[in-house]
Amino acid sequence: MADSYQDKLDEVNADLVAITRFVGSAMNQATQSLLDADLTIAEKVIESDARIDTLCSSVEERCFDIISLGHPTEADLRLVIGALRIATSLERMGDLAEHIAKQARMRYPKPSVPQELRATFAIMGGVAEAIVSKTGSVIANRDVSLATDIAHHDAEMDNLHRELFTIVLSPTWKHGVEAAIDVTLLSRYYERYADHAVSVTRRVVNVVTGEPYVAVDIT
Amino acid sequence: MADSYQDKLDEVNADLVAITRFVGSAMNQATQSLLDADLTIAEKVIESDARIDTLCSSVEERCFDIISLGHPTEADLRLVIGALRIATSLERMGDLAEHIAKQARMRYPKPSVPQELRATFAIMGGVAEAIVSKTGSVIANRDVSLATDIAHHDAEMDNLHRELFTIVLSPTWKHGVEAAIDVTLLSRYYERYADHAVSVTRRVVNVVTGEPYVAVDIT
Repeated sequence: MADSYQDKLDEVNADLVAITRFVGSAMNQATQSLLDADLTIAEKVIESDARIDTLCSSVEERCFDIISLGHPTEADLRLVIGALRIATSLERMGDLAEHIAKQARMRYPKPSVPQELRATFAIMGGVAEAIVSKTGSVIANRDVSLATDIAHHDAEMDNLHRELFTIVLSPTWKHGVEAAIDVTLLSRYYERYADHAVSVTRRVVNVVTGEPYVAVDIT
Repeated sequence: MADSYQDKLDEVNADLVAITRFVGSAMNQATQSLLDADLTIAEKVIESDARIDTLCSSVEERCFDIISLGHPTEADLRLVIGALRIATSLERMGDLAEHIAKQARMRYPKPSVPQELRATFAIMGGVAEAIVSKTGSVIANRDVSLATDIAHHDAEMDNLHRELFTIVLSPTWKHGVEAAIDVTLLSRYYERYADHAVSVTRRVVNVVTGEPYVAVDIT
């Protein structure tokens, strides 16, 4: 039954890759709902999150089943535990996209983001798309060489986050406290999304190389 | 070797309980550093987080070893996977305490929290202490009857969080944008700390009763 065992592992992996696409699409649409103050798209993202949660639970259940088959090799075990962890991170990435869509919905029909910061959020959305897409490739192909790229995108996201922080705190900020908090929280959602992607990548590196997992500070 | 198997599970559980104490102590001290603008205590919390991380990794390693022994029962498996998840949540709770201490350090010697909000943060600190202490009991005794209590504390924390949000957005707020953001982020750290405690409790309920784990929206 070694084949069936391997098949199950492959299925889990394929599902994780599929989830990265859903989570990427959720984030793209969340960014669009934010920039266009588009309620319909925001609602769609919020509604779709349940599907991501269900897919993640299903992966979890299957990992559980695989371990129950007994006698996994140490490498397989690491893979299954890694998959469980990756599913959790992906679920959280979906939640972060949902948070952004909820923010867009809360301020609708007003935009959540002042005109002069739209470009920055558009870039953050683009970086998020790049990072989740590469994360999907890392999972699909166990190609850990992309880890450097992903770390680079994450650093870019951190810089954008810091930049926004500086802007809302500058004496020339004229949009008041509420908008400052909106921008800060939104910016953190993008930043944490990238952090989770880095965490997923490190899980794969851990699975592939056996090197210890290095924790990412995401709370 | 059934005994040795059970012993290992008991050890993991005892370690998780011990970690709740460290995480509780970190949060207490973080609150103190925040309210007293005490740099020494803030530094201590920041420094101690590495110990919490190490303990959590060690639990993780041991869970891994237990599964490697092979042929766990379904109940044991659920327990080990639950322990892995709980360790992750506890690690994040430690990180949240560290975030609060870092905030206190960043504004030192200025306090991060305006005088009129100190009482609210003191209560949040108290609720955090209560919730983590009960979470420790839930893990130690598999006493899931405390889940209702913990949900109650979590609701209290959510209310305090909303209250602070209303205050920083009120027209009478006179401390400016930076303090508003500080308060909002700090308040979220306490709220998320409580959310993680709820998540831990639900993991234990899942392990004890076999009822499905109900996800907590923590991102």
